[in-house]
Amino acid sequence: MEKINIGKNVFIYPMPVTLLGTTVDGKANFMALGWVTRINANPPLLALGVNKVHQSSKSIEENRTFSINFPNADMIVETDYCGLFSRKDIDKSDIFEVFYGELETAPMIKSCPLNLECKLLHKYPLPTNNLFIGEIVAAYTEERYLTDGKLDMSKMNPLLLTMPDNNYWNVGEPVGKAWSDGKKFKRKE
Amino acid sequence: MEKINIGKNVFIYPMPVTLLGTTVDGKANFMALGWVTRINANPPLLALGVNKVHQSSKSIEENRTFSINFPNADMIVETDYCGLFSRKDIDKSDIFEVFYGELETAPMIKSCPLNLECKLLHKYPLPTNNLFIGEIVAAYTEERYLTDGKLDMSKMNPLLLTMPDNNYWNVGEPVGKAWSDGKKFKRKE
Repeated sequence: MEKINIGKNVFIYPMPVTLLGTTVDGKANFMALGWVTRINANPPLLALGVNKVHQSSKSIEENRTFSINFPNADMIVETDYCGLFSRKDIDKSDIFEVFYGELETAPMIKSCPLNLECKLLHKYPLPTNNLFIGEIVAAYTEERYLTDGKLDMSKMNPLLLTMPDNNYWNVGEPVGKAWSDGKKFKRKE
Repeated sequence: MEKINIGKNVFIYPMPVTLLGTTVDGKANFMALGWVTRINANPPLLALGVNKVHQSSKSIEENRTFSINFPNADMIVETDYCGLFSRKDIDKSDIFEVFYGELETAPMIKSCPLNLECKLLHKYPLPTNNLFIGEIVAAYTEERYLTDGKLDMSKMNPLLLTMPDNNYWNVGEPVGKAWSDGKKFKRKE
């Protein structure tokens, strides 16, 4: 079939669904964030793109800390609520039960199967968003999400996002092994 | 249940599975890449973290172009092969049928349901990886992956990756609508 050019504003398939935790006026605040990735192996660094108009953008700069929380599929309504409404209009500090690690201004969500506690290293302003580079200082989970001591995505049951159709998806089944299945590749003779 | 601290080297759940396309010595080359995200809305910018030792890192700097290709789940063996072996040891130019858009050094994979053609804007060297910021100049798909004119992930059937368990996963089912389901949220009285 023929390739068609669908323009420039295309997204990653799929995006992870996370809640970005910050502190605003001394209270926990959360926004939905799909634009996040690891970018460095050692130390473990993350990149996030956060629209400059968001309160969370200002709070990360102010406190130089943030958290990345992975909701499970049962938390879809609360998660989407955090994406729908701005801290400027709504106090989101009482939606989730919150806990803290070593950083005093990186609130983390107790009901999320995984929490990354982060400190800000750099900010690069882009045209519409801020690119934040943060270092993971600790990560938190519960025993029930582990298999053989490793996080097990089938137990975590995280959400995925696609845009511009704006669908949330759950994850499927394991279908192969990385750094292994490629050994079966046979070149065409 | 109690939260446990599982250290710092924790990954995003899940990571997308992409093939990063570059040109090396005039030939197409591909490496498996899970560390990629959108970071700016307008213009559409991507961030990628690529280990400095990879040939792809050098090629992006040299040509100032690259592509991000999304393989489908049927391409797991070829995709993993590109992650297992280095261009230093193996010529990967004949694994896939390749096409080009407007940039002469951003090879794209015909069998992938989605291709992003990108030009490099900035490089920020990090301790082990290079952070590349690129702009999407065009995106390519086929009619059969669209529903109502939008990319349909269930038709694309992309792969997901988790580390350090090193599993590939497929995507599940749509389970909700973003910027909509949150309207059902009721605060505790």
